[in-house]
Amino acid sequence: MKYGIVAFPSKELQDLANGYRKRYDPHYAQITPHMTIKGVFDANDKEIEEVAKEIKKVTDKHGPFELTVSKVSTFAPITNAIYFKAETNEELMNLHKDLNYNFFGDEPAYAFIPHITIAQKLTSGEHDDIIGQLKMVGVNHTETIDRIHLLYQLENGSWNVFETFRLEGAN
Amino acid sequence: MKYGIVAFPSKELQDLANGYRKRYDPHYAQITPHMTIKGVFDANDKEIEEVAKEIKKVTDKHGPFELTVSKVSTFAPITNAIYFKAETNEELMNLHKDLNYNFFGDEPAYAFIPHITIAQKLTSGEHDDIIGQLKMVGVNHTETIDRIHLLYQLENGSWNVFETFRLEGAN
Repeated sequence: MKYGIVAFPSKELQDLANGYRKRYDPHYAQITPHMTIKGVFDANDKEIEEVAKEIKKVTDKHGPFELTVSKVSTFAPITNAIYFKAETNEELMNLHKDLNYNFFGDEPAYAFIPHITIAQKLTSGEHDDIIGQLKMVGVNHTETIDRIHLLYQLENGSWNVFETFRLEGAN
Repeated sequence: MKYGIVAFPSKELQDLANGYRKRYDPHYAQITPHMTIKGVFDANDKEIEEVAKEIKKVTDKHGPFELTVSKVSTFAPITNAIYFKAETNEELMNLHKDLNYNFFGDEPAYAFIPHITIAQKLTSGEHDDIIGQLKMVGVNHTETIDRIHLLYQLENGSWNVFETFRLEGAN
């Protein structure tokens, strides 16, 4: 089965992101707005219990982190995806490191750019039409993230939560 | 904010239910297949932390329960909803009782009929057209449920997981 690890922002920020996603993100119905902390990996029913135990060990060590989104950015021309860019901070980067290096699944091929996607799979024309306005409207929001979620994917592509892990460490 | 408590069945059973829900359930995209254990209730950000603590106390007392769905049934003529009927058992009924009586939210107005909805909001014509065939195809599946999920609702109607609770008691 396919798994991934995300942080869901507050309802307020999810509602804001969904306002864009409804029109601009074909994954709108498959998952609510999120920040991916560990990309898709495979595990069977036994392995995932082991993974869950290891995630628990990691989240027992790490405390809550601050999520600050203060600009709209784009991955174009690599891919036509637009996102709320999250500011990096030590707590988040260390949590990402512990869940991606010397951990289950492949190590990431790219540097971690924490973000919440609000538009994707756009044509270049669509992308260029909206990026200017979305950047101008912008975003400005700070909150504390105190838990992460291990997700699994159903056959129809939608994601569901296997387990939540509170960030209970002292950082 | 609106909250509820559900059990998600295995991916296998969710995929099976989604085969029907895709065509027959307008809530298909808002939540994955589930068995409701506590219906919708309101709580603010402070209250929900208290509720989560109390749920933890309940799930620390209750162990995993068996989920057996062995027939397709309907709530018609009360409402045109069709579901996989779950067999009742003591563990499930006691868990339901502890989360619904002398607990947060209103006490249920109806007896608990554990089920996984596969079709709803049908016209009577649609309902009568498909119920015979769905009953004939039927369902026959048993599994163990070892966790429940506290959900919250976004403005667009979709549900997300606030926290999971493993059933860690001895029953």
